[in-house]
Amino acid sequence: MEEQILSYSQLSNFANQIFLQIGCPADHAALATQSLLRADLRGVDSHGVARLSGYVRLWEAKRVNSKPNIKIVHESPSTAVVDGDAGLGLVVAPKAMDIAIAKAKSAGTGWVAVKNSNHFGIAGHHAMMALPQDMIGMAMTNASPLVAPTFSVERLLGTNPIAVAIPADKQPPFVADFATTTAANGKLEILQRKEQNAPLGWIQKKDGSPSSNPNELKDGGALIPLGSDREHGSHKGFCLGAWVDIFSAVLSGANYGPWVPPFVSFLSPPADPVGEGIGHFFGAMRIDAFRPADEFKKHMDNWIERFRSAKTIEGQEKLIIPGDPEREYETERMKKGIPINQKVIEDLKALAIKMKVEF
Amino acid sequence: MEEQILSYSQLSNFANQIFLQIGCPADHAALATQSLLRADLRGVDSHGVARLSGYVRLWEAKRVNSKPNIKIVHESPSTAVVDGDAGLGLVVAPKAMDIAIAKAKSAGTGWVAVKNSNHFGIAGHHAMMALPQDMIGMAMTNASPLVAPTFSVERLLGTNPIAVAIPADKQPPFVADFATTTAANGKLEILQRKEQNAPLGWIQKKDGSPSSNPNELKDGGALIPLGSDREHGSHKGFCLGAWVDIFSAVLSGANYGPWVPPFVSFLSPPADPVGEGIGHFFGAMRIDAFRPADEFKKHMDNWIERFRSAKTIEGQEKLIIPGDPEREYETERMKKGIPINQKVIEDLKALAIKMKVEF
Repeated sequence: MEEQILSYSQLSNFANQIFLQIGCPADHAALATQSLLRADLRGVDSHGVARLSGYVRLWEAKRVNSKPNIKIVHESPSTAVVDGDAGLGLVVAPKAMDIAIAKAKSAGTGWVAVKNSNHFGIAGHHAMMALPQDMIGMAMTNASPLVAPTFSVERLLGTNPIAVAIPADKQPPFVADFATTTAANGKLEILQRKEQNAPLGWIQKKDGSPSSNPNELKDGGALIPLGSDREHGSHKGFCLGAWVDIFSAVLSGANYGPWVPPFVSFLSPPADPVGEGIGHFFGAMRIDAFRPADEFKKHMDNWIERFRSAKTIEGQEKLIIPGDPEREYETERMKKGIPINQKVIEDLKALAIKMKVEF
Repeated sequence: MEEQILSYSQLSNFANQIFLQIGCPADHAALATQSLLRADLRGVDSHGVARLSGYVRLWEAKRVNSKPNIKIVHESPSTAVVDGDAGLGLVVAPKAMDIAIAKAKSAGTGWVAVKNSNHFGIAGHHAMMALPQDMIGMAMTNASPLVAPTFSVERLLGTNPIAVAIPADKQPPFVADFATTTAANGKLEILQRKEQNAPLGWIQKKDGSPSSNPNELKDGGALIPLGSDREHGSHKGFCLGAWVDIFSAVLSGANYGPWVPPFVSFLSPPADPVGEGIGHFFGAMRIDAFRPADEFKKHMDNWIERFRSAKTIEGQEKLIIPGDPEREYETERMKKGIPINQKVIEDLKALAIKMKVEF
């Protein structure tokens, strides 16, 4: 697949200009840029600048408010509900995570449910905000319904990711960030571009039968919860996706399940909403609300070192600690630039012309 | 498979007598009985009275303290660390969950990490303690290492279950309770008794190659994280199991990973412990710390009704809401009694003679 290498600063300058052009205040544009680009840096190419023109189209469709009044609408010592005022999730999410961190400072932990938001980029970015504070960070979000729960032919859930970021001492942090489906939608997009089949167990047809066609979702098919089938625990993947949906949206007052508005602007949100926008859920736990942080972090080093040095299956170099591959991408891409698919380049060029921004 | 039907009261009277005989104070014996029997009621036969003689053997091996001084050793407004004093997890867990609920009353949420405990029965029982309080409950625990993370041949994690219990209004609550492996160890025990093979994707051999032999763990094989293989997301199942291990044990000061002491008394705990006993993690979140409870519960009804009425794959009657099968078992077994496998009956009879208790 053809691609070009662009530097982090090129891409982030461009994204920042675009966010300013749709009317974001400077501080919001900076936050949105940081959230968005973190995906490109960490190798989650589907969630970065490849989505920039999609966000702009949502703004054009008046589904994104570029000047949101993001505010707490309900709270307790360790919790808050935030109304994102239809802002970019890329902005709403870090602001909500800041509130979770502030709550954790005073109450030990902080838990923030968000309604009336939009897609927030990669969950891991927000969860990792807790790390420099010696806190554990968590982030989850619901998303447009593309997933059929076990036994269902209807798409009732999004890929609903969960991220958990846990600090260590000398070792890099443990950062898990994963869709609660067998495969994330971004993986299908890659197969579509390469015109390759998907493994069985990722997708089902409109009638629920197995499929390996990465374009199946266009014909009414669905992604499958983690586990692939009942015998291999897809009901557990459904539990995970449902949990994320309920924490993100039923707790906050956002839309849940099949009512979550689609990310693409050419599909209208359901006419009978059960809440406002999409929902997120964030958590921050101060380590020293449990035990001294240095003690904890030394044990995390020990945990990570023991697992990383595990004896592996022949042909496998090492056990992968959650966050290792993404961190390696980040270091590499910050230094050497970010490879951008040619189709995405064309899309960004068109966006530059439309928005009168230099690319 | 031969079995006998015994009533709840028969079994619970017997278990209570046994707990009293090993020296539990009356209130502890009652708690332990309730925790243990809940597994039998809810159809998780592997975790109920079938394990009673195992708990007694752990007490005989002086690994269970029947008169523990269970206490908070560290706390903040929304958190606590509890030292279980080597008590039965069946007693320590409900006491820790009580602390989480009390914290949630004052701070909105309560989070309790537990060290120096033992196996606690089924996670769902403890999480469900939050429901009558209009709270969401969570429970997780680490366990003896039987699971090989993706690419590893070493058993480094337990089946590390997660439970999340969420109240509804007219609908019964949403109760997810699942091992973070493709299949729980109890499922293997059933196949062993029936002398049947396991599906591929549940178990690996000592060298990491696929196996369908349910006795494989006796030859150094391992259970596989939810997802079955890398292509179907077993690295996500590993993330889940690792998360449970770290929250349960690294936060609390218990043993983690391969250092978790074995459940069976004939295997000694590792000689180089990294903490005390096994670890649990509990959470309670007051619904009205987020939004009015009646509003939330009405939306939960709507969520459950929408999912339960989903169009299903041909041949499947309905989409299963987490907690439905277990609740149906509980109603049925409370009324008509609990079928107990003949081997378990023999085991309980032998236990009755040994402990001088009538069966």
